[in-house]
Amino acid sequence: MGEFDLIARYFVRPTPSASLGPGDDCALVQPRPGMELACTTDMLVEGIHFLPDTDPRALGWKTLAVNLSDLAAMGAQPRWALLAVSLPSAEAAWLAAFAEGLHDCARTFGVDLIGGDTTRGPRNLCVTAIGEVPVGQALRRSGAQPGDDIWISGQPGLAALGLAQLQGRLELPPAWRSRCIERLQSPRPRVLLGAALRPVAHAAIDISDGLLADLGHIARASGLQARLVLEQLPSLPDGVARHVALDALLAGGDDYELCFTAPANQRLTLGCIAADLDVPLTRIGHMTTANPLGEVLLIDAEGAVLPWPRQGYDHFA
Amino acid sequence: MGEFDLIARYFVRPTPSASLGPGDDCALVQPRPGMELACTTDMLVEGIHFLPDTDPRALGWKTLAVNLSDLAAMGAQPRWALLAVSLPSAEAAWLAAFAEGLHDCARTFGVDLIGGDTTRGPRNLCVTAIGEVPVGQALRRSGAQPGDDIWISGQPGLAALGLAQLQGRLELPPAWRSRCIERLQSPRPRVLLGAALRPVAHAAIDISDGLLADLGHIARASGLQARLVLEQLPSLPDGVARHVALDALLAGGDDYELCFTAPANQRLTLGCIAADLDVPLTRIGHMTTANPLGEVLLIDAEGAVLPWPRQGYDHFA
Repeated sequence: MGEFDLIARYFVRPTPSASLGPGDDCALVQPRPGMELACTTDMLVEGIHFLPDTDPRALGWKTLAVNLSDLAAMGAQPRWALLAVSLPSAEAAWLAAFAEGLHDCARTFGVDLIGGDTTRGPRNLCVTAIGEVPVGQALRRSGAQPGDDIWISGQPGLAALGLAQLQGRLELPPAWRSRCIERLQSPRPRVLLGAALRPVAHAAIDISDGLLADLGHIARASGLQARLVLEQLPSLPDGVARHVALDALLAGGDDYELCFTAPANQRLTLGCIAADLDVPLTRIGHMTTANPLGEVLLIDAEGAVLPWPRQGYDHFA
Repeated sequence: MGEFDLIARYFVRPTPSASLGPGDDCALVQPRPGMELACTTDMLVEGIHFLPDTDPRALGWKTLAVNLSDLAAMGAQPRWALLAVSLPSAEAAWLAAFAEGLHDCARTFGVDLIGGDTTRGPRNLCVTAIGEVPVGQALRRSGAQPGDDIWISGQPGLAALGLAQLQGRLELPPAWRSRCIERLQSPRPRVLLGAALRPVAHAAIDISDGLLADLGHIARASGLQARLVLEQLPSLPDGVARHVALDALLAGGDDYELCFTAPANQRLTLGCIAADLDVPLTRIGHMTTANPLGEVLLIDAEGAVLPWPRQGYDHFA
């Protein structure tokens, strides 16, 4: 099977939202009136972002999902994606499963795969996703205000626990095992939540590197200090050492939950959004006064600072 | 140096054309009224698309240039790019030179680098480029008409000869050596030519896999046969075996010249465009009657078909 047969068989699907889909030098698309485009790219490398024996179907889902999570964090609606892949060989079974997972994610979130590139090389998956957001309404990291509540969706930390289980560093209780691995391998980008937060939140980010690290980006971009209250954090899985579970929650990456800030007068609205979308939303702290360093402090209910050694993942630190 | 310092130091530059540039979950951009967006992505892998000891400055230029060539082939004006890179380590000297080449190409063609991703792994460079083209005016592969002339810009084949020289498969005459290597390592995307061709050409493509292979895409997409006339092809470098030079011209990739078709009544206009832009344009054949296979035939001046063994590059054939 040649390069072009491979593309036609596995990757080309109808693209009703594009003036021109895959198969030319470029795809052609047009945003709807009043919209601007949110653009993001994420590269997944074998051995770094995923284990060599990862289920290819789940990997196809995740390759797109992590990009849609970035769109969600801006409050943008996913529209289009391009996929560049480097593969050691054209294994039909692997490709078929990978493409199925990718197209499943695309269908679920209304994305058309409009173009890409396929080459030989060490396994590397790079998606660029493009979404639409009403002009001027995107959620930025820099919008947090003093006094804002800090919120987190879902239960961050499960993905890091799933990875530890797969790498044999941890033995999770059976009740949590498949849930944590599922969270690691098939994250669900919070697309509807992101859109619902547009009129409510001041700032948002998705948790890919770890809660402390990613909240730190909001704090720095907004020039504020962030204070997380230990007792307010989402509950930890039972049967996992507390320190391990807390570290996963605070510094484990790969969760793709949304962390956002909103004024206190939006608490009722956020309760309704959580119920409507069936997504747990937990108020975990607040933004304080000006702080150019953008510190993130973990405090207890009495306000005492609890040092935490690890912030999150850095590829080159 | 950590991941975020690396990004800030080498890759973040002002992005006046974007509502929001690098540093958030997504960049935000908006096409101008009446424009649609042309989107393309290309992945360059070490050992496949470039040699490990390639000058990083030239590589930075080429990484963006090959994507701008795809925009040029649609007649689109380059506007924005995203860069995802996987690198074995954060070597400052390599990164500084690579980024310099990339930004040089971006400046030259009016592109803002609006976002990206940086990760550890085998060296892999993936750019997604976005351009603007007036709605409905993009040049497509499928637009060729029976009787159209086939044209080629510049002197395709030089890049393949440069590669053969670098790999020790060939000893080029000194007068051609640096020119061929320059063409391989620092191709100039035909951006102005692509825009000028919009009202003139029926179909266009850039030559990345080889003239026969890429012209085959136009022929198949248009449902026509393409006939190249041997005697009309651009001149070959002196001092290189004729068969080798002709194979490079017909089947060598990496040229990033534009191949396009246009009606015969545009010959005068195309002569003016060539003179205005100082780009050689050579009329090398014509499109004939309906042919669903989209054959590309090489013929001599008497119309006899000359078989040619090699079409072009395929990563998985």
